[in-house]
Amino acid sequence: MRILSQYLPILDWGSRYGRTALSNDMIAAMIVTIMLVPQSLAYALLAGLPPEAGIYASIAPIVLYAIFGTSRTLAVGPVAVVSLLTASAIGQVAETGNAGYAIAALTLAFLSGGFLVLLGVFRLGFLANFLSHPVIAGFITASGILIATSQLKHILGVDAHGHTLPQMLGSIFEYLGQINWITVVIGVAATGFLFWVRKNLKPLLNRLGLSPLMADVLTKAGPVAAVVSTTLAVWAFDLGDRGVKIVGDVPQSLPPLTMPSLSPDFIGSLLVPAILISIIGFVESISVAQTLAAKKRQQIDPNQELIGLGAANLGAAFTGGFPVTGGFSRSVVNFDSGAETPAAGIYTAIGLAIAALFLTPLVYFLPKATLAATIIVAVLSLVDLSILKKTWAYNRDDFVAVLATIVLTLALGVEVGVASGVTISILLHLYKTSRPHVAEVGLVPGSEHFRNIHRHSVETDPTLLSLRVDESLYFINARFLLDLIQSRVSEGTEIRNVVLMFSAVNEVDYSALESLEAINLRLKDMDVGFHLSEVKGPVMDRLRTSHFVSNLNGRVFLSQYDAAKALTTKSTESGS
Amino acid sequence: MRILSQYLPILDWGSRYGRTALSNDMIAAMIVTIMLVPQSLAYALLAGLPPEAGIYASIAPIVLYAIFGTSRTLAVGPVAVVSLLTASAIGQVAETGNAGYAIAALTLAFLSGGFLVLLGVFRLGFLANFLSHPVIAGFITASGILIATSQLKHILGVDAHGHTLPQMLGSIFEYLGQINWITVVIGVAATGFLFWVRKNLKPLLNRLGLSPLMADVLTKAGPVAAVVSTTLAVWAFDLGDRGVKIVGDVPQSLPPLTMPSLSPDFIGSLLVPAILISIIGFVESISVAQTLAAKKRQQIDPNQELIGLGAANLGAAFTGGFPVTGGFSRSVVNFDSGAETPAAGIYTAIGLAIAALFLTPLVYFLPKATLAATIIVAVLSLVDLSILKKTWAYNRDDFVAVLATIVLTLALGVEVGVASGVTISILLHLYKTSRPHVAEVGLVPGSEHFRNIHRHSVETDPTLLSLRVDESLYFINARFLLDLIQSRVSEGTEIRNVVLMFSAVNEVDYSALESLEAINLRLKDMDVGFHLSEVKGPVMDRLRTSHFVSNLNGRVFLSQYDAAKALTTKSTESGS
Repeated sequence: MRILSQYLPILDWGSRYGRTALSNDMIAAMIVTIMLVPQSLAYALLAGLPPEAGIYASIAPIVLYAIFGTSRTLAVGPVAVVSLLTASAIGQVAETGNAGYAIAALTLAFLSGGFLVLLGVFRLGFLANFLSHPVIAGFITASGILIATSQLKHILGVDAHGHTLPQMLGSIFEYLGQINWITVVIGVAATGFLFWVRKNLKPLLNRLGLSPLMADVLTKAGPVAAVVSTTLAVWAFDLGDRGVKIVGDVPQSLPPLTMPSLSPDFIGSLLVPAILISIIGFVESISVAQTLAAKKRQQIDPNQELIGLGAANLGAAFTGGFPVTGGFSRSVVNFDSGAETPAAGIYTAIGLAIAALFLTPLVYFLPKATLAATIIVAVLSLVDLSILKKTWAYNRDDFVAVLATIVLTLALGVEVGVASGVTISILLHLYKTSRPHVAEVGLVPGSEHFRNIHRHSVETDPTLLSLRVDESLYFINARFLLDLIQSRVSEGTEIRNVVLMFSAVNEVDYSALESLEAINLRLKDMDVGFHLSEVKGPVMDRLRTSHFVSNLNGRVFLSQYDAAKALTTKSTESGS
Repeated sequence: MRILSQYLPILDWGSRYGRTALSNDMIAAMIVTIMLVPQSLAYALLAGLPPEAGIYASIAPIVLYAIFGTSRTLAVGPVAVVSLLTASAIGQVAETGNAGYAIAALTLAFLSGGFLVLLGVFRLGFLANFLSHPVIAGFITASGILIATSQLKHILGVDAHGHTLPQMLGSIFEYLGQINWITVVIGVAATGFLFWVRKNLKPLLNRLGLSPLMADVLTKAGPVAAVVSTTLAVWAFDLGDRGVKIVGDVPQSLPPLTMPSLSPDFIGSLLVPAILISIIGFVESISVAQTLAAKKRQQIDPNQELIGLGAANLGAAFTGGFPVTGGFSRSVVNFDSGAETPAAGIYTAIGLAIAALFLTPLVYFLPKATLAATIIVAVLSLVDLSILKKTWAYNRDDFVAVLATIVLTLALGVEVGVASGVTISILLHLYKTSRPHVAEVGLVPGSEHFRNIHRHSVETDPTLLSLRVDESLYFINARFLLDLIQSRVSEGTEIRNVVLMFSAVNEVDYSALESLEAINLRLKDMDVGFHLSEVKGPVMDRLRTSHFVSNLNGRVFLSQYDAAKALTTKSTESGS
């Protein structure tokens, strides 16, 4: 039962579900549903899919996450960045509007879901750590710019395309002659209105004396107001006949039962994007989940989260959806509206199912420009170039990783961008550890503490060279240490003993062991003793399994202080 | 002039060249030349090229290395592993025997030379460190097995092919019916003879009272004896007409002037193998050069070595050769025979030029089986499976990397094998650092030294949690630390202060900085102080550029002892 409720968290919270939680969850679900209807249609548009796919992608996935997920308030569904990644991945295997396109979206969700479940079952969530914070920040910012640019065509009413910034801008420029000015008026008005709602409506309503909850609901309903008013305008003035692109027929139906394609061709070209979508979606989702959980001291289990998100994506694959993940804005709204348990998600799903059954005819005249406006306003809040300034001030390596991620994502597309960011972070880290900081140390007077002779005023002895190696020793820097010690000892002719202070050495791999053996031999040839101090337990255990310690031309000291005491006394004795 | 002689080491040793060095270098050159003639023919055969290519590849490259290289005794030319890599790379773009095949070999040498020079000019020699010792050992061993297997077809006289162990064995099995028994007799006899020479001849000659130098020369001439006797046998008994494959016509000529192809197709498919060949060749060469230099306390400059090897390969590309590097056996022979300067290499090149001009008709009847025998005997000394046992005893991660390198090299070929080895070592390293060892520490009684409470008997205080983080903090483990501290502090309700002992933290990147800031906020919420101790200079400098230190809900102590003294006194005071 314990195990079962670890894999099925619903058994845990479901058994203690009460009346207060019910009413709180219902209120939150209503607010989230109002927000999700236009958002779902919009993200389907962004992914290049028919609008109903966005609603379908919000129903089964939410329910499945409620069963398997560990966050109380995470709201799962289509999100901007993942929809962009979906469009970019499918664009390589099918044309928008083709039957193949929708099947590719299902397959992508299926592969992504399967991959997430596998990661969860094998407890490989740590893979997400390969995305450093700066790379994520840079990627999200660049994606925000790409998404906003991709929506410009809907605001202008032209047929542009492309998956990189130069492609999109070039394509828009090429089709500039097609501009539909009525569409532009609708798009610009909707965008301006939504920006105004986001910035000014809530303070205004508060000043007018509305309750905070009411003010909040009305603010969240901003997109709905834009949808309703522009739809009415198109209907009343027959703007559809004057070139304004509208959503058109949307089937009135519950999510259909669908099948992803398992053709090797599809899988071959979609597997890598699916892995990318999974990891980026997981990172976004787990960050949101952990931030919200910390506020209420709740626990998130990252590996179970993988299973929850994986189940949600598998659900999307079989019910006409596309890849989903835990979204930031919808989860925050859910949390702020007072959701207490994942049941709120189930109620949201019911609300969306009702919308799919009964409200879809109402969006026939909805202009695509309005949906584009909601996307633009939502994603521009993702764009945050301050990460460039912050990393520049703190650490040039991180800055390089961010800059490369942003520039390459914009110039070459999302997949190349994020892959380059990850590769660059890893290479920079390896490069840094390949040339470790090695400090010569001396005794801080009146203590037993040893510090860098160039930074502190310390006591030293000319016959003793004490080096603190500020890095784990492994293949990347194994040769470096060998060269360094050989050149240091050749310089100082008085040196009779070398102590390597291992306080910062957390690992000695086999390559480094061979280097240490070589150092030992070379120092022996020069008649110089070779000692270690402050070797950590796990490192010492490892070294003892080799012949290094027994062949050592010197000793292993518990502390650098012991080493200095023993070796300087001895040298004074033998020198006298 | 100083700068010039840094890039042209010949100016340095050449200006002090004397009579003793001259005679020593000449003797060494003679011995090396005798050894190189059959070896060069054999490695050309291994690379799938006409035999003269092996001699050409030993002439210009040796001279160019003598001008640009920094080792006094390294001998450059075709070597077994690089010849195997060459055959494998070219096999993907051309058929053996085609005109395109030889041009591909020139192009490969050209790309490899260009890449090495670039690495040298931009001082990027550290890239070679990505190949850990175990991966190199595994790769060399697997290559030795592959090379020996690839020569079986010449010993059996069949037309087998393939670049992986299963392919080769399958192909030999398929052609078993073709076996030429006369060839088998020659091949097996030559192999047996060469093994006997290698193992038993030198001790025997020494016992017979020959001078060590003479014994050495005769032993080195073993392959020449095999070549001469089998050639005579083929000539005398007309074995060529009875199906024994012979070397045939070899042009009598100095190295020709040749041009690599710069067609994008060729470059596209040869660039990655060229990079691989460069790095593996460089690693092999620099290890030999440094081992020999250490014996005479000479200096090797790794970046200038890149330029020297690059020049040698460019030379090979324009004189009918193929990729070359510093070889182990030929360099050791050169060193042991008393070579003092790179001039020995120049004399060797002259000797080989004479051979190319006048001796090539003599090898017309030389059976390929004899060359195959020299290769087999040479490479089987590379095979050393003890690395598996050693790494298993020392470190399972290194063992996994070796095993994967060996198995994948044999099963899927040299390129996949070495690339997998490198990738696996890096991933295992990253995985290890993603879950760092964190020890709770206490004071060793009677000292100022703090050690792990589970390994040493130490003093602790229940209000103070002192954690020593045994790893640099960076994106791979940033989230880990956050989770760990939160769970430790929630467990121990008495805890009033947390000290992170940073003695082993060599880096805090931007992702980790954000984690530390989050830890600070969470501990503040729990009313727990957050302190650091023993922060290294470079790390502290970095942290000071952010707001972390000024926002810290605690202090930064020079030593853990200071921290414990200050925080336990304070807690006693406020508790009393």
